[in-house]
Amino acid sequence: MRIINQRALPHAFEVLDLKTVADAARAIKDMYVRGAGLIGATAAFGMYLAAIEADKDIRDAAAALKATRPTASNLAWAVDRMLACIHGVRLDAAGGADRQAVISAARREAQAIADEDADFCRRIGTHGLSIIRAIAEQKRKGEAVNILTHCNAGWLAFVDYGSALSPVYAAFDAGIPVHVWVDETRPRGQGASLTAWELARHGVPHDLIPDNAGGHLMQHGLVDMVITGADRVTCCGDAANKIGTYLKAVAAKENNIPFYVALPSSTFDFSMRDGVKEIPIEERDASEVRCVTGKTLSDGRIETVQICPDETPARNWSFDVTPARYISGLITERGVCAASEAGIRALYPEQSENSL
Amino acid sequence: MRIINQRALPHAFEVLDLKTVADAARAIKDMYVRGAGLIGATAAFGMYLAAIEADKDIRDAAAALKATRPTASNLAWAVDRMLACIHGVRLDAAGGADRQAVISAARREAQAIADEDADFCRRIGTHGLSIIRAIAEQKRKGEAVNILTHCNAGWLAFVDYGSALSPVYAAFDAGIPVHVWVDETRPRGQGASLTAWELARHGVPHDLIPDNAGGHLMQHGLVDMVITGADRVTCCGDAANKIGTYLKAVAAKENNIPFYVALPSSTFDFSMRDGVKEIPIEERDASEVRCVTGKTLSDGRIETVQICPDETPARNWSFDVTPARYISGLITERGVCAASEAGIRALYPEQSENSL
Repeated sequence: MRIINQRALPHAFEVLDLKTVADAARAIKDMYVRGAGLIGATAAFGMYLAAIEADKDIRDAAAALKATRPTASNLAWAVDRMLACIHGVRLDAAGGADRQAVISAARREAQAIADEDADFCRRIGTHGLSIIRAIAEQKRKGEAVNILTHCNAGWLAFVDYGSALSPVYAAFDAGIPVHVWVDETRPRGQGASLTAWELARHGVPHDLIPDNAGGHLMQHGLVDMVITGADRVTCCGDAANKIGTYLKAVAAKENNIPFYVALPSSTFDFSMRDGVKEIPIEERDASEVRCVTGKTLSDGRIETVQICPDETPARNWSFDVTPARYISGLITERGVCAASEAGIRALYPEQSENSL
Repeated sequence: MRIINQRALPHAFEVLDLKTVADAARAIKDMYVRGAGLIGATAAFGMYLAAIEADKDIRDAAAALKATRPTASNLAWAVDRMLACIHGVRLDAAGGADRQAVISAARREAQAIADEDADFCRRIGTHGLSIIRAIAEQKRKGEAVNILTHCNAGWLAFVDYGSALSPVYAAFDAGIPVHVWVDETRPRGQGASLTAWELARHGVPHDLIPDNAGGHLMQHGLVDMVITGADRVTCCGDAANKIGTYLKAVAAKENNIPFYVALPSSTFDFSMRDGVKEIPIEERDASEVRCVTGKTLSDGRIETVQICPDETPARNWSFDVTPARYISGLITERGVCAASEAGIRALYPEQSENSL
């Protein structure tokens, strides 16, 4: 498995090889890869690598992958799908260990998960495009639609296209003038390092802003819509996403600005209803808050600098939950629906019958 | 005039001498000093330095000081008070240039402004203390009152005590258990570099958090109150403060958490009503957003690192305005009042007659 090392962006573009399931687990845990869809696809290929490794118990591998990061649904979803596939092949072989058949099936299933992720994200772009087009039609001709996004939910966060950025790319490619406000997204700065980089590669006009600025922009009519991705969405439409998303959602509602969450169905967790109470929120190391990594102005080296006194303690929750009432709609691969049990049930009736 | 160089904190404690009004203007503009009250006091002593400088036209000096930073009321307030004092002495001398009398009067007035700032901030602490005590009495015995603050409105931002932090220090000194959530306050990080440093010097328990975290904390009952300072407050109670304050105020209201703004009366601008429309918002250089300065982990040097691609544009508004409807009360040197024209008029009747 080959990955883009997202820890090195935007100052270097590095491709790394992952050769074992332990490599895959470390890549997820230490955020060489991140983003809901990409975590899922990496975990799927991690399970394939586990199938190749003769000495690995596949259930141990599954547990190790699931333990890397607690919040994103896609992780457990992809691992469970791989487990079902692998167990299915083993059952077919009536208990006989047809190892090559297991490996082939695991590879096909991981590739299917990755291909489906890209395809679903492409569809999210198509559905989201119509929302952006409708806003563009309300504006003066040629005036850009100002879209605020938080964190990175572009193609770096998925196998391709992205969730939140897929509609932006689709609109840009369709000739609709768009401009993106890129939240820096402290503590890890995925907006500054990844979203700004992605948008520049695609030629989409954008400006980097501190996470603090969005409310001011909304107050002054400088935001037409907000689109974010999600790491887990409950059956009632509560959405966990990068810490700080909730603040933007509340401000958007106060200023009557539409706030959309874009996600492939692998991000739904149909077993949960109340996101604030039920979704586990990862807490990461305080050093991410106390320090910032970047390229020195003096000589271009990569350095980590501490921004607070030596003795300062810090807390670092990675996600927060935006209750469904702040969300104007969910943009999925099947279309746009209300962030509500009824809205989600209408798009995903097969899940509704089983789980809701 | 001697100042603490706030650009060097928290990694070094440096005292600098300002010898000319040009030094004072540069210290304010480049944020060697910052914070509403301290900007006012520095500008006042800057006017005193101008009075000493034989070749300086006092009106030019006043204009130069006022042009350094547009948002804080205290700046123009202090300069105008110094101008009135200096013109008063000149008039008394019937046009004769009794230079020594002007210098002496300017020095006395600047010192009076500084002493009054410290005294008013001390009183803010006393009034705010009763709010914190009332919250403490609602909690289990010994359980800390969790106070979130944004930016630095401690003694570093004033001549002494501070505005937002003065009640915190008063509560701590009175034996009430308090714990402060310190917003990092990007882009310049005054929370991480100044508030965390101040609180540690005083022994007040605290944790540094990203600006993105406050909403999550409020949702989970981990914030009992918010106190911020202000740079300008209109006669109707709209408050300009560091960018990002508005997002916290909106989230506090959504979560029924009291949100207080603490200010000495020098921060009021009785000539303005609608803060969002009328208060000028400073926009600073994009480099503050694109870069972060700190102490390298590798060898403890002070370095500035770039966190985004080379080509990324950024925008950098320094303040936002929190409309009065989000503010539970204003903590002033005369007491606590509603953030409304009536509330402010009741505390400052002499201003009401003139200006409201």
